[in-house]
Amino acid sequence: MSIRPIGVIHSPFQSREDIKKQRQTHEVEDFLGELEIFKEFEPGLKDIDGFSHLIIIFQFHKSKQRNLFAHPPHDGKKRGVFSTRSPDRPNAIGMTIVRFLKRKGNTLKASGIDMLEGTPILDIKPYTQRDIKKKASFGWLSQTKK
Amino acid sequence: MSIRPIGVIHSPFQSREDIKKQRQTHEVEDFLGELEIFKEFEPGLKDIDGFSHLIIIFQFHKSKQRNLFAHPPHDGKKRGVFSTRSPDRPNAIGMTIVRFLKRKGNTLKASGIDMLEGTPILDIKPYTQRDIKKKASFGWLSQTKK
Repeated sequence: MSIRPIGVIHSPFQSREDIKKQRQTHEVEDFLGELEIFKEFEPGLKDIDGFSHLIIIFQFHKSKQRNLFAHPPHDGKKRGVFSTRSPDRPNAIGMTIVRFLKRKGNTLKASGIDMLEGTPILDIKPYTQRDIKKKASFGWLSQTKK
Repeated sequence: MSIRPIGVIHSPFQSREDIKKQRQTHEVEDFLGELEIFKEFEPGLKDIDGFSHLIIIFQFHKSKQRNLFAHPPHDGKKRGVFSTRSPDRPNAIGMTIVRFLKRKGNTLKASGIDMLEGTPILDIKPYTQRDIKKKASFGWLSQTKK
C-alpha cells in the first residue's frame, strides 16, 4: 500500500532519551507541541474544531528495528511487541491520542505530544465516544508503574 | 515507508453496505470477528492476555478514493475528512478499538469488529489507561446520532 505524510509534528524532543528524561518529572499529558498539516491537506481540517481529543497516526521515523519483542521501561521483562507501544515493531506506525488546544490555519496546537520533532503524520481522526472504554483492564501493564 | 500486513481480519461483512445494515439493528460493540495473525508474527502476541481491549490499525483495502471531505451517515453534511472516520481519506489507514475475548494460537477472537472480511491488519497495540479520555467532547458528532 502507498502511504505519504499529510504533515509533520513539532515537539521539543530530538531523541527517545529526551522523552524518557522529561517523563521523569512531567506528565505526558502536559507535553506541548504542534501538528503542521501540509497546505494541500488543510481543507480536510474543516469541522475539526470542537473535538477535545484527536487520534494521531504517525510514522516512527527514527526506528530502525523491526522487532517481535520489546523491553518496556520500568518493567525489565521481554514482552511481546503487540502488548507494548514500542516504536520498534513490524510496521513502524505509532498512535497517540492528543488534546487539541487550538487551530491556526494549517497548524494544530496540542498537548500529550510524546512524538519526536519531525515525526511524519499519516492521519488525524476524531476521538469519539466509542473510543472510551471505561471498564478496560491492562494485562501486564497493571503490575508496573505506567 | 514500507508497510506489510501482519495478519487479516475475518468478519461477516463483505461490503460497507453490510455493516450499515447491521448497525441499524445491532450495536457495533456486539459485532464478532477474528484477527488472524500470520505465523511469522505470532511470537509478538506474547503477553497480550489480560488486556481487555486492543487497538487495531488496519488498511481500508476496499477504499479507492482519497478524499478531503466525507458525508457521514446520519449527518447529511459535507465534513472535513479529518473530523470523520471515513475510509476514503488521504492514507487508507483505519483504527478500531476492539474487545479482546480469547486467544487461540495465532487467532484472536474479538468483538467490536466493524471491518470488512479480508481486511489487512497493520498493527496491534494494547489499549492503555492513557487512552481513556473521560472528559472528551465530540464537535459536530455531539449534534447527531452516533
